[in-house]
Amino acid sequence: MRACGNVYLIGAGPGDPELLTLKALRMLKSADVVVYDRLVSDEIMAFCPERAELIAVGKSPDCHPVPQDQINKVLLEQALKGRTVARLKGGDPMIFGRGSEEMLELSLHGVSVEICPGITAAQGAVASAGIALTHRGLASGVRYVTGHRAKNNPLDLDWEGMADPETTLVVYMGVANIALIAERLIAAGLEVGLPVMVVSNATKPDEATLLSNLYQIGVQVRAAKLSGPTLFIIGRVVSLHAELRQILRNPAVLPETEQALA
Amino acid sequence: MRACGNVYLIGAGPGDPELLTLKALRMLKSADVVVYDRLVSDEIMAFCPERAELIAVGKSPDCHPVPQDQINKVLLEQALKGRTVARLKGGDPMIFGRGSEEMLELSLHGVSVEICPGITAAQGAVASAGIALTHRGLASGVRYVTGHRAKNNPLDLDWEGMADPETTLVVYMGVANIALIAERLIAAGLEVGLPVMVVSNATKPDEATLLSNLYQIGVQVRAAKLSGPTLFIIGRVVSLHAELRQILRNPAVLPETEQALA
Repeated sequence: MRACGNVYLIGAGPGDPELLTLKALRMLKSADVVVYDRLVSDEIMAFCPERAELIAVGKSPDCHPVPQDQINKVLLEQALKGRTVARLKGGDPMIFGRGSEEMLELSLHGVSVEICPGITAAQGAVASAGIALTHRGLASGVRYVTGHRAKNNPLDLDWEGMADPETTLVVYMGVANIALIAERLIAAGLEVGLPVMVVSNATKPDEATLLSNLYQIGVQVRAAKLSGPTLFIIGRVVSLHAELRQILRNPAVLPETEQALA
Repeated sequence: MRACGNVYLIGAGPGDPELLTLKALRMLKSADVVVYDRLVSDEIMAFCPERAELIAVGKSPDCHPVPQDQINKVLLEQALKGRTVARLKGGDPMIFGRGSEEMLELSLHGVSVEICPGITAAQGAVASAGIALTHRGLASGVRYVTGHRAKNNPLDLDWEGMADPETTLVVYMGVANIALIAERLIAAGLEVGLPVMVVSNATKPDEATLLSNLYQIGVQVRAAKLSGPTLFIIGRVVSLHAELRQILRNPAVLPETEQALA
């Protein structure tokens, strides 16, 4: 084994550059080369040191994506030059980020890897919207699934298990399949009126939100022409959004406030 | 409605002060008063501005906890003095953090609330351990549940839904009930040999990890005398830990590495 560089697998969070962690920033600042995804915003890329070489390996459903083994090769090549490599990914590298695949491949070749978690889009989306992923009486847990499968693979999700009204369900990468997903969840027992919040570009300046329910979501999403990374938050917690808006329309009555402090 | 202060609901992350976000740090630095949980580490509290008043509202299963309505009252009282209040919570305020309860109560009284998400313990734990929450071929999704219920309430989890071998299951606050949880998951169809990783004090200097499986976890945890916040990661992704250790014991063979770069 020879001495070689190291790779930082860094979660860049959902988009707002302020949602980077202090650790991510430190790692990024120390990089000789930054290998980044298309989901990483320009504002975050602005944190890269001037001397660093920037290599885009963005995967886009429209443009020809860079295959994972090619990305692994780029990382390995850079690390074996003895450089400090920042591998910058949207969200958290260990949640739908294939960070562990890159980690194993690099480790196999003697490259040291350090992982920095990031705020995942679901967390950013609910913080913006003023709802929660869990809330007493509405959801005792939360589940993240992906609504996307590799070409020709069926969407064989655990429909029965996902149809738990006590669990907030977050679907990543689900735009193309949301009508099918909603249909299967209803068939598995979830109520047609269960609220759904669609969030595109969570925490970015062009964040867009759509409120719907399981029955209508398929049609509404088809009509809405969503762009950018989009997720679906399905469950009773979404009702907190309406509750909060209602409160904000009828704010503080002073006597009530005084009473609360009594 | 009268002008009044504002409350920042801030996720402080799992423990490592570097896992604070830039936004959390900015909010914290602007605070006149910091209302904090016992799960927030001293290193993070050291970020508080010198002028800020510090109010502990820690809930501990052993010490008498501060009831939630009392915490709400403290926050409201401070905000209505026109102060900027940082409500600092371990993890993410919207995942098992009761952040939404505080948000609704404050909003009801006309106090403006802004939420900053935080790295939740599961994300910190897997980043430390070098495993993932999702990994192609091992887990297509992840689910967070809590293994704790309010006194006298039965642990009525969705056992069938949780017993999905394709989903990584993370149990927060489950030390007291893990034997029962494992038993019920096995009864619901999960394999007895399914690996379980126990992580206490994730990302802190005293982080401790225990590897087990569903069959043995109850006995092992009883023997292990765990302290500090502990979570259980249940699922095939835990096998990545052994795989990584195996690789690290037999690192880079140069010809193989050269070949990978060919």
